[in-house]
Amino acid sequence: MQPFTTRRADTVAALGEEKLISAIRRWLGNVNPAPPAGIGDDCAVLTADRGRTLITVDPVVYGRHFDASVSPHHVGGKLLKRNLSDIAAMGGTPTVAVVSLLLDARTKTDWLAGFYRGLASAAREYGVKIVGGDVAQADGTLSASLTLIGRAGPRVLTRMGARVGDWIYVTGQLGNSLATGHHVAFRPRLAEGQWLATRREVRALMDVSDGLAKDVRALTPASTYPAIVADALPLRAGADVRGALEDGEDYELLFAVAARTDTAAFERAWNRRFRRVRLTKIGRFERPVAAALSGSIVDLRRYRGYEHLR
Amino acid sequence: MQPFTTRRADTVAALGEEKLISAIRRWLGNVNPAPPAGIGDDCAVLTADRGRTLITVDPVVYGRHFDASVSPHHVGGKLLKRNLSDIAAMGGTPTVAVVSLLLDARTKTDWLAGFYRGLASAAREYGVKIVGGDVAQADGTLSASLTLIGRAGPRVLTRMGARVGDWIYVTGQLGNSLATGHHVAFRPRLAEGQWLATRREVRALMDVSDGLAKDVRALTPASTYPAIVADALPLRAGADVRGALEDGEDYELLFAVAARTDTAAFERAWNRRFRRVRLTKIGRFERPVAAALSGSIVDLRRYRGYEHLR
Repeated sequence: MQPFTTRRADTVAALGEEKLISAIRRWLGNVNPAPPAGIGDDCAVLTADRGRTLITVDPVVYGRHFDASVSPHHVGGKLLKRNLSDIAAMGGTPTVAVVSLLLDARTKTDWLAGFYRGLASAAREYGVKIVGGDVAQADGTLSASLTLIGRAGPRVLTRMGARVGDWIYVTGQLGNSLATGHHVAFRPRLAEGQWLATRREVRALMDVSDGLAKDVRALTPASTYPAIVADALPLRAGADVRGALEDGEDYELLFAVAARTDTAAFERAWNRRFRRVRLTKIGRFERPVAAALSGSIVDLRRYRGYEHLR
Repeated sequence: MQPFTTRRADTVAALGEEKLISAIRRWLGNVNPAPPAGIGDDCAVLTADRGRTLITVDPVVYGRHFDASVSPHHVGGKLLKRNLSDIAAMGGTPTVAVVSLLLDARTKTDWLAGFYRGLASAAREYGVKIVGGDVAQADGTLSASLTLIGRAGPRVLTRMGARVGDWIYVTGQLGNSLATGHHVAFRPRLAEGQWLATRREVRALMDVSDGLAKDVRALTPASTYPAIVADALPLRAGADVRGALEDGEDYELLFAVAARTDTAAFERAWNRRFRRVRLTKIGRFERPVAAALSGSIVDLRRYRGYEHLR
């Protein structure tokens, strides 16, 4: 749906701020608790958990993360799921979110209704409450930024901790996310991340969103090279090796497994728990000299991931 | 400072994403803890407090909350302080924040350096850590949205709780915020909010940011009228009654004090604690019939506050 209109009666400006906020609360339905636990006071008041808290923020921007070809329902879902993928990447459980909306006065009220209903639908599916937000006007812009809070598990898996010799694993498939619709249809790997955090052989974890070639660097220990075997890469339908390395928006988990692990046993345990989610050993962290010896290893200097500013 | 330039070498696009994020961490300095407590992993990991948590989000948008006449340092400070005012309005203490930045590729790196240094300076002043964020490109836009987390005190003061007969108080002065520079120079009323939460006679609290005429409605109990005495309004330099009611960006505290309170004693206690901060009794919540009898009472139908969408 085209999000803007010149028919003033159909715009958020015609609705006005007060009615818009009422409408947002209606569109969100039961994923918005009554104030002060939800929308309606200066802050939302949450009952704090013991243990550790996770916090992350990611936006969706018109012309970048979606356009008129994506339904507003999918845009709302994507906004939440992008952030859920970050909580999954620490092995955590999502709890509450706030949404900051920036929009042109010509934005269609119908578009916004679809967006918030899509957001609410995803929030219900993943057990998240939307507890607050803000709406501000910005000419020529339509974007929403969501801050997501989560509860850490007994162990938090960060990007740090991989060592030389560790195996590199990835969930699902990579590449061609846009054409296949994966960029809106994906399921964030929450259960998978929580399970990985219980496994002592898993040393470091992150999600792949800007393309493997770019993201794997964050997991790579100093003085090592991520020796990824090109033929091992799990390709999404229509993707080639370059797409798997560069396309971005995979929202899969990438992690390091300790060198001495019985990887066959680890993979059997995975398959028992996640029957339908593919798990692929794609390489290992090696000393640069060792990695250079093999012709089947990806030369990462030849690939780039998604660059946020150009 | 004009935030955009056509000289490519001076832009964030020329810097590139990776160097920009490094620069942001440098500009933020010690208000950004090392990961995973700060910027650099999929989420920030916080040690959860016991008790209750507050969460709020507010943006600054180029052309709405600032323009080229405001220094980037002040824009960064204003972004944090707008949110601090919401924590103050619940009687809480701020702890950590994340920032979602939306910018045109032509944004000057220098502008952004000033912005983040101003944000860091305010964060140090108020004891807030900046623990994460996101940078996304959006053509023709420059805006930042900050989500602020706080710790609730033993008592949370919401907007609900005022009753008929309660006195209406406001801190500081109202009106003419833009011309006087108050909209960037203001100090959020954190200590004042925390103190008010310890006083049993205070029944409801909020901050005034969209103009008193609009905001007071949120504090007003059903079937009552906020009988505000026009002559009692504390006017900022150059402001008239209309400005005090409509201008917005006051970032003062507005609260209800129980009808039977010895208000002279309450005011003496305030003045002992906050020598330099003016406190003004501006009216009381009355039955509509009683309020209509007096000619000195503001007729709120004749005034409007700041409308976010027009």
